[in-house]
Amino acid sequence: MRTVAMIIQGRTFVVTGGSSGLGEATVRAIVERGGKVIVFDINEDRGEAIASELATSVFWPGTTDVAGEESVLNSIEKGMAKFGKISGVVNCGGIGMAQKIVFRNGEPQSLDIFEEVIRVNLIGTFNVCRLIAAHIIANIKADAEKDEDPGIIINVASIAYTEGQAGQTAYSASKGGVAGMTLPMARDLAGQVRVCTIAPGFFGTPMGEAVKDSNLQKHVVHPHRMGKPSEFAHLACAIIENPMMNGEIVRIDGAVRLGKL
Amino acid sequence: MRTVAMIIQGRTFVVTGGSSGLGEATVRAIVERGGKVIVFDINEDRGEAIASELATSVFWPGTTDVAGEESVLNSIEKGMAKFGKISGVVNCGGIGMAQKIVFRNGEPQSLDIFEEVIRVNLIGTFNVCRLIAAHIIANIKADAEKDEDPGIIINVASIAYTEGQAGQTAYSASKGGVAGMTLPMARDLAGQVRVCTIAPGFFGTPMGEAVKDSNLQKHVVHPHRMGKPSEFAHLACAIIENPMMNGEIVRIDGAVRLGKL
Amino acid sequence: MRTVAMIIQGRTFVVTGGSSGLGEATVRAIVERGGKVIVFDINEDRGEAIASELATSVFWPGTTDVAGEESVLNSIEKGMAKFGKISGVVNCGGIGMAQKIVFRNGEPQSLDIFEEVIRVNLIGTFNVCRLIAAHIIANIKADAEKDEDPGIIINVASIAYTEGQAGQTAYSASKGGVAGMTLPMARDLAGQVRVCTIAPGFFGTPMGEAVKDSNLQKHVVHPHRMGKPSEFAHLACAIIENPMMNGEIVRIDGAVRLGKL
Amino acid sequence: MRTVAMIIQGRTFVVTGGSSGLGEATVRAIVERGGKVIVFDINEDRGEAIASELATSVFWPGTTDVAGEESVLNSIEKGMAKFGKISGVVNCGGIGMAQKIVFRNGEPQSLDIFEEVIRVNLIGTFNVCRLIAAHIIANIKADAEKDEDPGIIINVASIAYTEGQAGQTAYSASKGGVAGMTLPMARDLAGQVRVCTIAPGFFGTPMGEAVKDSNLQKHVVHPHRMGKPSEFAHLACAIIENPMMNGEIVRIDGAVRLGKL
Ligand SMILES: NC(=O)c1ccc[n+]([C@@H]2O[C@H](COP(=O)([O-])OP(=O)(O)OC[C@H]3O[C@@H](n4cnc5c(N)ncnc54)[C@H](O)[C@@H]3O)[C@@H](O)[C@H]2O)c1
Ligand SMILES: NC(=O)c1ccc[n+]([C@@H]2O[C@H](COP(=O)([O-])OP(=O)(O)OC[C@H]3O[C@@H](n4cnc5c(N)ncnc54)[C@H](O)[C@@H]3O)[C@@H](O)[C@H]2O)c1
Ligand SMILES: NC(=O)c1ccc[n+]([C@@H]2O[C@H](COP(=O)([O-])OP(=O)(O)OC[C@H]3O[C@@H](n4cnc5c(N)ncnc54)[C@H](O)[C@@H]3O)[C@@H](O)[C@H]2O)c1
Ligand SMILES: NC(=O)c1ccc[n+]([C@@H]2O[C@H](COP(=O)([O-])OP(=O)(O)OC[C@H]3O[C@@H](n4cnc5c(N)ncnc54)[C@H](O)[C@@H]3O)[C@@H](O)[C@H]2O)c1
Repeated sequence: MRTVAMIIQGRTFVVTGGSSGLGEATVRAIVERGGKVIVFDINEDRGEAIASELATSVFWPGTTDVAGEESVLNSIEKGMAKFGKISGVVNCGGIGMAQKIVFRNGEPQSLDIFEEVIRVNLIGTFNVCRLIAAHIIANIKADAEKDEDPGIIINVASIAYTEGQAGQTAYSASKGGVAGMTLPMARDLAGQVRVCTIAPGFFGTPMGEAVKDSNLQKHVVHPHRMGKPSEFAHLACAIIENPMMNGEIVRIDGAVRLGKL
Repeated sequence: MRTVAMIIQGRTFVVTGGSSGLGEATVRAIVERGGKVIVFDINEDRGEAIASELATSVFWPGTTDVAGEESVLNSIEKGMAKFGKISGVVNCGGIGMAQKIVFRNGEPQSLDIFEEVIRVNLIGTFNVCRLIAAHIIANIKADAEKDEDPGIIINVASIAYTEGQAGQTAYSASKGGVAGMTLPMARDLAGQVRVCTIAPGFFGTPMGEAVKDSNLQKHVVHPHRMGKPSEFAHLACAIIENPMMNGEIVRIDGAVRLGKL
Repeated sequence: MRTVAMIIQGRTFVVTGGSSGLGEATVRAIVERGGKVIVFDINEDRGEAIASELATSVFWPGTTDVAGEESVLNSIEKGMAKFGKISGVVNCGGIGMAQKIVFRNGEPQSLDIFEEVIRVNLIGTFNVCRLIAAHIIANIKADAEKDEDPGIIINVASIAYTEGQAGQTAYSASKGGVAGMTLPMARDLAGQVRVCTIAPGFFGTPMGEAVKDSNLQKHVVHPHRMGKPSEFAHLACAIIENPMMNGEIVRIDGAVRLGKL
Repeated sequence: MRTVAMIIQGRTFVVTGGSSGLGEATVRAIVERGGKVIVFDINEDRGEAIASELATSVFWPGTTDVAGEESVLNSIEKGMAKFGKISGVVNCGGIGMAQKIVFRNGEPQSLDIFEEVIRVNLIGTFNVCRLIAAHIIANIKADAEKDEDPGIIINVASIAYTEGQAGQTAYSASKGGVAGMTLPMARDLAGQVRVCTIAPGFFGTPMGEAVKDSNLQKHVVHPHRMGKPSEFAHLACAIIENPMMNGEIVRIDGAVRLGKL
């Protein structure tokens, strides 16, 4: 008998960014373990395709912008109508960005780009967290039986949260923000929802293509390759299942650390 | 002979948030060491008062909103007209905030509050950094003589960047963002501007009053009191003066670590 | 199909400290997943009892002192004779200690105690790592078929590695040492053996009793109790199974952070 | 008036490793600020030379092995006879070491080397800390007037404490240990002695020569060179002077982070 308290089997999770990359792999991993998934993404084609491939277990509520209040509330409602109560979320939705803070020609980076990265990666993550957390707490109040481990939030930062490369000021700011809110959010939601953050290194996803182009994977120590999205998803599921994992920021990166490039 | 490369004496620095608290103390410390200061703040009364008290060394360019592009560009221009070229900035401008991510009554925190804290503390800090950095780089190009250490940015996070308390999700997100951009910004600006971040514990300032009210200073290990703004300023000056301090996040907190309260 | 590369099923692992607490739970978790275990411990009674309970899967090679060269070499040899090649080690063997660096009466802590904690927790961990790593590397050279993920080392630090309480100077020094060697060891063993470190909070084991006595578990945020050894073991197995987990230090602590007590 | 509480002027500090490199620079910086120094080192020639060069301010008590109880007690006594009470220590004494944990030929690193690095860098540092701390506490009890900031310990780790390179398992273990004991030691000594740790990057000292040989300084981001020992000493003095700096680990490294080499 494996003594794990949050069993994925039979539970429903939201996966943002579930149309692609790490999110898609997380959708598949949850389904393999008998769970159900509602995908929040702006990529409709891929989202619908996955939902129709895994029809009994995956639901596409229509396009969801993680940073939009209405958009997320709407999709939560539709998802509940489909699968009933939601037990957690893995926040994989996000965008990348590389641009120096001051260009060669002396011009500063524009404020727009910085604001957009912050809007999606940081405000979007927070927005989904607060709305899903409120939903889980409402479930707890409604439930007759008390569950020790009723909810889980997994946010996705990046190793750039602490060792961003040149060009990553905006991205690192957004991911540092995600990392920074891990502990206070876990404290706010004590007794209700666990909160962990995964900080991936280089993974083979559409976003990871930029990495591949610059041959960054040669820096990964061992295994000497980019991570597979399924490996990210394996960790995400291990955290979901483990009730003692709370307030932690976990790196998964094959021991890569990036020096001056 | 003390071998330090960035001499404060005779140089000009911007201090955001210089009208109050840690910023005001930094203004005074720079002036004590023979430097000049341009204050960027929205508190006009205090800003003007300090500038008139220390008239030959401190300049008040009028109200400056750190998050505004025009506002900051304007004040840089006026400051240069007054003191000539600027060598760096200490970004003390910021706001506090404490609110649970989901309230007792089950309502989620509103998005507005989160966005406002991010706007001032994170976007505002980035905005000033990019504009001051561009200014310093323009100076470097204009200067005939090459200086090994032409510019410095010191940003201000908080120990909440890594150990935020309950109620600090927004604040910790903003400060995690500031911490996260330290290294990529230092990498982007290599050869031009150093970038460090100070993460203070509890300091006796107007913002620190909230701390005092909840008697949090009793957690400070030694000295068993809140920090004095002059102690923060002492560290800021030590970082300005030391050319090898770059890319670092430095805590100053009297060994406080906050557990469950 | 779950895409994980290091399958526990059919592999043999050493678990030091396997006679008790976190180690014993790790032994049981590996066996549940179809693996075999050689227990290295100085607690003979408990070690033999576990080995006879789980006779086909667990081997007791006689008393092993993790800090002894001969002792460990001997037990590796006996273990290999029993189960064939070894794929990894989880280093749970260790001792606790609480004593102020200077006593109330003004006397300094004796050097002996510090040295003993370092000997078992740090030198012992290193000793087992180097000898098991050499063993795994010998296997790699002998094997015809190349395995992408031939070996794994999991060391056990403690959250005291970075936030030790009063009285924990020796213990924190030993655990800081374990944490510090994670990355260089992973780099040395690239292509051969992965190396991760787990930093547990408070767990219900014989060593954890001291914690219970001082009622420290009330500081655990959520779940609001001490960790179960099986939860530690769940994480250890998740790391063994995940080939991208390398060079990481992973906390598992229910979001506890210890302030001034 | 600069409001700093621990004035170096007129106070006496021990500097271990004061015969060379970072230690020597610290000796000189303390003397420049009007302080007195007792050098604890095993390099007699250099130690005596410095003491005779700076005769009124620097004392050489004869060879001192930081890891020896008698040796350190003896030198404390001689130092007190010379200068009176001691206010703190900067622990620069240490040794380097680079060796893979398993050699190319398959042999594991010998235990002796690991133990020697731990003995000097970790046990030696602890030994000096406990004996100096006991000495400072005895002074506090003897003094009629109460000083808010009676004592300071600065230990020296290395950035290898958290990002050790290949070959640095032993060195990183020793430095991780030093880093790990920072906070519990500060907690044990609350009200009496502050404790901080400096983690230097690459500095131009005899120990740093190995770095130079492998051209590692090209990785330093800015300034694009090895650190000057005087820059380390500038930071050490800034920490001594600042009463709010306690329990902190401070990097000084010109933004270097070491990836795979
Ligand atoms: N791939 C890597 O190497 C890597 C490394 C570190 C961190 N990450 C992080 O992991 C997460 C997933 O990245 P990925 O590699 O799978 O990227 P990806 O581009 O494959 O997937 C990201 C998904 O997020 C969706 N998305 C973007 N903006 C959205 C919005 N406003 N609302 C809803 N959905 C939105 C996209 O449509 C896409 O499907 C991101 O947060 C990324 O920053 C990735
Ligand atoms: N006091 C503490 O205990 C403490 C602890 C950790 C971090 N900090 C941080 O230190 C910094 C300074 O804090 P403080 O304690 O001196 O607070 P403070 O309130 O005394 O001063 C902050 C100053 O920032 C100014 N400011 C606010 N919004 C601004 C804007 N949009 N544009 C320009 N100026 C603006 C305010 O007018 C004020 O003068 C803040 O970033 C704060 O988060 C303070
Ligand atoms: N229990 C906790 O709360 C906790 C928290 C953080 C870290 N840890 C660490 O986890 C590890 C396991 O701790 P535990 O709680 O299971 O303790 P435990 O006392 O239950 O088990 C430790 C085992 O190590 C063995 N051991 C001790 N010295 C040995 C030696 N020289 N050679 C071989 N075996 C030796 C003991 O016999 C015992 O069986 C330790 O390293 C401990 O520091 C425990
Ligand atoms: N130089 C660097 O790049 C660098 C980087 C990171 C950390 N460090 C650390 O800084 C400290 C000083 O290093 P350094 O570069 O000045 O080296 P160094 O070799 O120039 O000086 C070290 C001094 O320590 C003394 N010493 C060695 N063993 C001793 C013992 N048992 N008892 C007393 N004294 C002893 C030596 O005699 C020598 O004078 C060391 O702890 C080192 O690990 C140095």
